[in-house]
Amino acid sequence: MTARAERLFAELAVLSHDPPGLTRPSYSPQENAAHDLIRRDAEALVLEHRIDRIGSLYVTLPGQDRDAPVLMTGSHIDTVPHGGNFDGAAGVLAGLEMLARLAQGPKPPCDVTLMVIRAEEMIWFPEHYLGSRAAFGLLPRDLPDTLCRSDTGCTLAEHMTKAGFEPQAIHDGEAQLDPAKIRAFVEVHIEQGPVLVDAGLPVGIVTGIRGNIRHRFASIKGQTTHAGAVPRSARRDAVLAGAALVCALENHWLKTDAQGGDMVLTFGEFSTDPAQHGITKVPGALSFTLDMRSQDQTTLDAFAAQCAAQCARISAARRVEIDLGPATRAEPAPMTSGIIEAMQRVAVANNIPHCLIPSGGGHDCATFASLGIPVGMIFIRNENGSHNPEEHMEMADFDRAADLLTEWARAELFSH
Amino acid sequence: MTARAERLFAELAVLSHDPPGLTRPSYSPQENAAHDLIRRDAEALVLEHRIDRIGSLYVTLPGQDRDAPVLMTGSHIDTVPHGGNFDGAAGVLAGLEMLARLAQGPKPPCDVTLMVIRAEEMIWFPEHYLGSRAAFGLLPRDLPDTLCRSDTGCTLAEHMTKAGFEPQAIHDGEAQLDPAKIRAFVEVHIEQGPVLVDAGLPVGIVTGIRGNIRHRFASIKGQTTHAGAVPRSARRDAVLAGAALVCALENHWLKTDAQGGDMVLTFGEFSTDPAQHGITKVPGALSFTLDMRSQDQTTLDAFAAQCAAQCARISAARRVEIDLGPATRAEPAPMTSGIIEAMQRVAVANNIPHCLIPSGGGHDCATFASLGIPVGMIFIRNENGSHNPEEHMEMADFDRAADLLTEWARAELFSH
Repeated sequence: MTARAERLFAELAVLSHDPPGLTRPSYSPQENAAHDLIRRDAEALVLEHRIDRIGSLYVTLPGQDRDAPVLMTGSHIDTVPHGGNFDGAAGVLAGLEMLARLAQGPKPPCDVTLMVIRAEEMIWFPEHYLGSRAAFGLLPRDLPDTLCRSDTGCTLAEHMTKAGFEPQAIHDGEAQLDPAKIRAFVEVHIEQGPVLVDAGLPVGIVTGIRGNIRHRFASIKGQTTHAGAVPRSARRDAVLAGAALVCALENHWLKTDAQGGDMVLTFGEFSTDPAQHGITKVPGALSFTLDMRSQDQTTLDAFAAQCAAQCARISAARRVEIDLGPATRAEPAPMTSGIIEAMQRVAVANNIPHCLIPSGGGHDCATFASLGIPVGMIFIRNENGSHNPEEHMEMADFDRAADLLTEWARAELFSH
Repeated sequence: MTARAERLFAELAVLSHDPPGLTRPSYSPQENAAHDLIRRDAEALVLEHRIDRIGSLYVTLPGQDRDAPVLMTGSHIDTVPHGGNFDGAAGVLAGLEMLARLAQGPKPPCDVTLMVIRAEEMIWFPEHYLGSRAAFGLLPRDLPDTLCRSDTGCTLAEHMTKAGFEPQAIHDGEAQLDPAKIRAFVEVHIEQGPVLVDAGLPVGIVTGIRGNIRHRFASIKGQTTHAGAVPRSARRDAVLAGAALVCALENHWLKTDAQGGDMVLTFGEFSTDPAQHGITKVPGALSFTLDMRSQDQTTLDAFAAQCAAQCARISAARRVEIDLGPATRAEPAPMTSGIIEAMQRVAVANNIPHCLIPSGGGHDCATFASLGIPVGMIFIRNENGSHNPEEHMEMADFDRAADLLTEWARAELFSH
């Protein structure tokens, strides 16, 4: 039943080809083209569709009561630079598949809507869940003018305008969606870790989304000196200081792990300055990013405190300045227990092998959760992780996720 | 007496201005322009001058016996990218000052020659003492075609030709200088570490030059995965592995230091790949440089062995591939004891405050030493190290070095 999705995945790959892998930046021509594809197929399926002022696409199967709270699914369709074809897109295509299948049956009591969300990959604009928060009017009003895309340096307002949308909606704090009008929001996504692969299961039912604290512009300033002539005691080496920080925080991670605490830690960028460094120079400057995540706010806060303490210790001991820069934060978001349980019942009834699983990555679903909307997530087994060109989802597993999503929606819509 | 040098330093700064600091790449128009300046002043001083096929400039005060072995001084005049104005140039200008002063006195028994050496800063062409080894026909004959400049990617042959010189001389293995015709070679250079500043002394008499082992193209290959979703045990993180290597080697350095061993260790470049990395990705690749130096060959070899052992351990434990890439090596070079002692006598006789000091950096003088030519070096006090825009030498200290060089040469020439 996945011929449509298979074709759409192939079309998405072509329009965002950027070896290695593919690239669909937030508010880019490629993201627009992906939205156009979905709209074209929605038309072919005789589904309603509309685009709001900030560029979100809504594809709707009309229900009997057009004013009743809507059952929603959705995900994003942008990618990281040189990413794979499934992170984000799998949820959008699963949602489209669900609508196509529901359209074959009796008219649902309420509208069922797929939302194709803008700008989720925060590597482009450093703000969590930008598209879904914009949809609820949750962004700071000046953000379109202060937030710049990492690759172009142009503002969010410039990119939105260029893509054909209206930053004024954000300036006005205008909400495109009313939480009271949403019955539930369920997001399908590929698993971004190896848990389902290791367990040999096609899908996972998500228990909660890890929160995070991120430092995007951390730096260490030491002193650039001669690599051969300066004795150890006189050096202020930014790389040695950075390595000491990495090792100290990895140690804390090991301890947290050993105590059963949930967390992950990543220095995704870690670089001396190509314009200034050299093999015969003691490096005087290092810049890096730091990403700390946990399902548990207390663990996250303890880790941030540990990080600050280590920076102070290393700065003093090595006579360097460690500046973590501004932090962005996203709180952990638990999924709704009633939805988790209903999904488990549907999975058992339909013979879909599954397990419960935490979400290590952040997802737009967390925005809906923060507003008190009932939420759920389904993970699809996926090899080689995500955010890289080698992510690999089997269409058979995608089909099991579309089954679970559709049958859960059918139970939710028709069993009450 | 330093008006000439002061003026020439100012002219050099102007012709190689490249904020921050200044840049005179090997075999570049800026290096050529620096040679032209020296030649112009040599003419004004009525000194002989000539340029050989590979571009070295020789400025000569003729002696009574034109066939007797020559007393030589010299240094290089290229700089690292965004370096200072004194590394290299100070030795050239001190040599010119010596010739100017000797020219005022009686005709020396033999020629006295300043050599302005090409291409010493190996950040441009990754080969130790390129210019001085070329002058003695010591380079591999294919080098002009295989060695590329780090900034342009063009070969040594292309850069030599463009600068007006003849790579064919290297292809032919042709020597521009005969070791048997050199009575002694003495090089003046700024100190590249803080020892003289800390000791409050204007000059140092060098005991020996540290040898080194360098890896210019080291890398770690892991796996790029999702920063939030992959558990610790499943990661192959290139930055964590790199930090572990840095910390392990720094530990070995601390031990060597504690045991009184001489060594320094530098990771001058250390970078994730800007084209592939990101805050939400576990870094799958890291590239770095490694520079290990010691006055003692045994210490150097022990350190290289320790490095290999740590790479093997970390590769296995963290499931990454650490590849140090090719190594370049330079052996430690002791200075000639007779010259050291003569310089000490001259310093005492002329009331020049000084100390003995090792050279942490490599210098062309090591090439002359390797051929059995009697050698010596004089360091000038210099603040903030070298290879950076903040290097700072006082002209009064330069003058003391020119005094020491000139009076040592006078004693050497006229006391036998």
